[in-house]
Order: sequence, then structure tokens, then C-alpha cells
Amino acid sequence: MEKFELHILGCGSALPTTRHFPSSQVVNLRDKLFMVDCGEGAQLQLRRSRLKFSRLNRVFISHLHGDHCFGLPGLISTFGLLGRTADLHIHSPHGLEELFAPWMEFFHKTLPYKVLFHEFDTKRSEVVYEDRSLTMSTIPLKHRIPCCGFLFEEKQVANHIIREMTDFYKVPVYELNRIKNGADFVTPDGELIPNARLTRPAEPARKYAYCSDTAFHPQIAEQIKGADLLFHEATFAQDEEARARETFHSTAAQAARMAADADVKRLVIGHFSARYEDESVLLDEARAVFPQTMLAKENLCVNVGAGGNRDF
Amino acid sequence: MEKFELHILGCGSALPTTRHFPSSQVVNLRDKLFMVDCGEGAQLQLRRSRLKFSRLNRVFISHLHGDHCFGLPGLISTFGLLGRTADLHIHSPHGLEELFAPWMEFFHKTLPYKVLFHEFDTKRSEVVYEDRSLTMSTIPLKHRIPCCGFLFEEKQVANHIIREMTDFYKVPVYELNRIKNGADFVTPDGELIPNARLTRPAEPARKYAYCSDTAFHPQIAEQIKGADLLFHEATFAQDEEARARETFHSTAAQAARMAADADVKRLVIGHFSARYEDESVLLDEARAVFPQTMLAKENLCVNVGAGGNRDF
Repeated sequence: MEKFELHILGCGSALPTTRHFPSSQVVNLRDKLFMVDCGEGAQLQLRRSRLKFSRLNRVFISHLHGDHCFGLPGLISTFGLLGRTADLHIHSPHGLEELFAPWMEFFHKTLPYKVLFHEFDTKRSEVVYEDRSLTMSTIPLKHRIPCCGFLFEEKQVANHIIREMTDFYKVPVYELNRIKNGADFVTPDGELIPNARLTRPAEPARKYAYCSDTAFHPQIAEQIKGADLLFHEATFAQDEEARARETFHSTAAQAARMAADADVKRLVIGHFSARYEDESVLLDEARAVFPQTMLAKENLCVNVGAGGNRDF
Repeated sequence: MEKFELHILGCGSALPTTRHFPSSQVVNLRDKLFMVDCGEGAQLQLRRSRLKFSRLNRVFISHLHGDHCFGLPGLISTFGLLGRTADLHIHSPHGLEELFAPWMEFFHKTLPYKVLFHEFDTKRSEVVYEDRSLTMSTIPLKHRIPCCGFLFEEKQVANHIIREMTDFYKVPVYELNRIKNGADFVTPDGELIPNARLTRPAEPARKYAYCSDTAFHPQIAEQIKGADLLFHEATFAQDEEARARETFHSTAAQAARMAADADVKRLVIGHFSARYEDESVLLDEARAVFPQTMLAKENLCVNVGAGGNRDF
């Protein structure tokens, strides 16, 4: 199966602790890297992850709070020092480009590559990136300021040809693409060979949803339905539910309820408040609602496809 | 002896490595904290140092390269989240306030405290801070852009009264201050009691000099003469001397030559290029010139006064 992995670079919330960096993660789909949020220290953590900087061409910022974007100036500088020449695309809600313009001019005047800013509307879901294997769209969230999560949807790949069978039926090469895409085959004698005899079904396309920062927001369940993996913020435990509501964050139980409502396969919770020295209280509260939950942690790598991760 | 310590938060150069954070350090003089440079991740390292955030009221930025100031936005936010009310003073060469103005307005609009920017002239030494126990002045350096180091000079404290002797000679209380400051005492009978019989000399005032980033710059020797501790950048080893010259940085041997020329007591080298997996080559080259040299490292704490540190 093609690589589809989530790397956690930081999963703390705004206040730094000795255990967590602020929000940042990297999605690796077939060795293309997509950074989601870029809190302070993201480039240091990226270095630690051993992921290749040159494979990262796009950064997606969920919202313009500092703990989700203060790592950008350092990342941009470092890419320059490493001699990058490929464009870097930064997608975000409105306002980032204007804020960065004087910094780009002063600190990043002589970059050997271009930084291109793109804005997305936070009020409705839109496709922010698409290529042969991936469609990425925004997930409008409910936070104190305009904020979106991101849905990574792998495109369904064609079925696999069973070479022995196509050889046996002497299927001409020019028919193979049609058969991969589901067509049956008719032999020169007029015999119909059903597609199922000629192909093995491809692995089902996989889906990863990132939802941070947000209050519990039932509307997103529909969009993230059936995702293989959901990252949902869980800033607080149950006893801080009032505080969660006030600050437009979620409790661990609410994150789990979203996972259950959306019928996702597995849940990773993160964006932990600095008050929790030990996040097992958050894990326990989430698992009571949705057993397939795990805690994010720095340098964790999760396979987005089913199974294979013993931490669940 | 009163506390006078140097805490290294980060001692790498611009490219991040898995071993080093970019430049930042904190000087602790009698539990007042002074931050010198604030590279990305400084607040995370400050948290790790267990130093009290509330004791830090002044940050000094040597020059406006990103690896010396990209940690400021996060630091400013965090102080706000922690409910700080005391003013925070940021001293730097010209330009920082203007660069920060739109960020302050957008990200730090609701801070519960004031951030006050102060500019210093980088062409000549000037006093940037003074209190009862400390004078802090800039050390003009030689870098690609305007840049200053900082000299921390403890003020000489008065001599200690030897209580037994002042009792013996029946020195009236109102004379004690004059005697502390060096005066002799004349008894009612006209006998002159020399000051040396009445006092023990105070510990000599201590001096710490921070010099980064800079090419080898002989002019600074005079100003930092006799410092108890010198931090000098040593970005490169000897075989990269041409590169050091080109980028206005120093080699380890040049840092050591400065320590020797200025007759300082001890030298800490830092601002290491990412190319050195193992900095012992830098240490060896420096010690060949100036034996009392040590390598900076993250979370290291050095006593500025003589002795007591086994790493030298």
C-alpha cells in the first residue's frame, strides 16, 4: 500500500511546556509532504523527524493564532539557507500575506525560491489542493477567529490486473486500462469475461481529517464521515467543559463524540492544555466514548490506513 | 557571593539541527533575568530552564537576523497568557519596532502588559541599562548587518565592616557608611585607625561579555578587558576561515585569540555551524590558543564568577 502517514511535530496548545511544542504536523502521502499548521519550533521538529525538507511544497495554516503560525518565519529562512529553489505555497485564512509582507521584505529578501500565499474562505468547504492522488479540502470549524480544518482524501486507484488471467484470455495491451477501470472483456469469440475474473480490487481510498482548533461542532460529522483517521483537538478534560465552551475549544469526550458521530475508524487527540502534566485523563475520557483513540505526541508517526499501529 | 549566572537556551547558528536551538541566553544577576537574543524556541527553552518568566523584564537583541529574534512573537504571546502585567522592554538595533508593529496589532492586541521597544546605536558603545548593581553596555561588533554584543558589568559593592573592630574602636553608627566606602576612622583621642583594619575587601565586581555574531574584531578587546567570562561566537573551525571571513563570523581559534588578547578569565564558545556533528574540533582549536575554554550547550548554566565550573 502506498505511504500515507501522519507525523506529529507538535501537539501542545498555546502555552509551551517542557513536553509539547505548539501545533504542527506533516502528512506524507506517497512521499509528498504537506505541513498542517506551523507553530514555533516546527522546523526544529521537522529536522528531528528526518523527513526530507525538499519534499515539502505546501503549508496549510488552520487559523491565525500564533501557536499555529509563529514557526513560519524560521521555516522560510531555513528553506532558503538549504538552497531551495522550488516554490513554497502557504495556504491560510485571509490576512497572513499582509502580515508577512514586511517580514518577507526584511528577513527574506534574498531567498532563492518564491513563497506564494493563498487564501481560502473559512465559511464554506473548498478544495485547496488537488493532484493525481489527492484531493484536499477545508473543513470550516468553530473557533474564536476564522478557522478551518483540512480533509485529505486519497483518490481511488484503479483495480489491479491479474496478469495470469489477462495472459490466459490473451487480452490485448490496449484493453488493459479499460479493464483496470472496471470494464469486462469480450474475447474474439464473443465470450464475456467479467471484470472480477481479471482484476483484484484496489485498496479502498483513505481519508484523514484534521480538526483543530474548534468547539464541538456537529456540522463537520457529515464531511469527515468514515475517515480512516481523525485528528481532533481535545484541549480540556470534562471538568473544564465550561472553559472549553468559553474559549471555543473541545473536551476529550467531545472529540470522541465527533469520532463516533462521524463513524471514523480511529481518533488521535491533541492540542493539549498545558495544565495536564499527564494526559491519561484525556485519553480515558475519550476512550470511554470512542475506544479507538490515542494521544498525539511529538515525533509520533501514525499510518493513516487501517491497522498496524499498536498504540490504538 | 550574589548570583551571577549565564544560562544557555540555544547556541546553534541559523540552520537548525537536532542538537541545537538558535541563539538565546539568559543572564541571571541576583534573580533579575536578562535575555540576550531570542531565536526560535527560546520560550520553550526558557520553560525548560525553570527560570521564572516573571523575573524577565528585558530582552536584548544583538542584530536583526532571524535566528536571533524569531522567538520574540511566541515569547510575547506566552507572557500575555501567563497574565503578565509588568512592562517588557526590548532593546535592539533600529528597525525591530517597525517590523513588529503589525504583528503586535494583530497577534498581541489584547496583551495585559506593555511591550516597549528601545533602539541602540550600533556604531558606538552605549549604556543600555543600569540599576543599583549592574551597568550594561553595547559592544559594537563587525557583522554583515548592524550588530552589537553586550557587556554586563556588576557594580563594585562596598567593603564589609568587621563588626568586632568597629565595636572595639567604638565607631559611631553614622560613620559606618563612610568606612564601608574606604574612609579611615579617627577616634575621639585623635588616633587614626586605617580603613584596612576596620573592613574586609568586598568580592571584586564581575564582568560578562557576549559577542555574537561577529568577524574577528580586535577593537573589542579593550572594552571587554579582564572579563570573568566571555561568550564569543565560534561558528567555524580553522579550515573554514575563508568562509568565516566571507560571512563575518569567527573561527574557534579567533574566539580564543580574542579571549587571550582581552585577558579574560574564561571563554564559552557557541553559535556553532550546523556542519559540526561533533564540536570537539572547535573546542580543541580554541583550547590550543586559550586553555580556559568550554563549549556552550543547551541548558548549560555557568557561574560568571571565578571557579566552580568543572567543565573548564
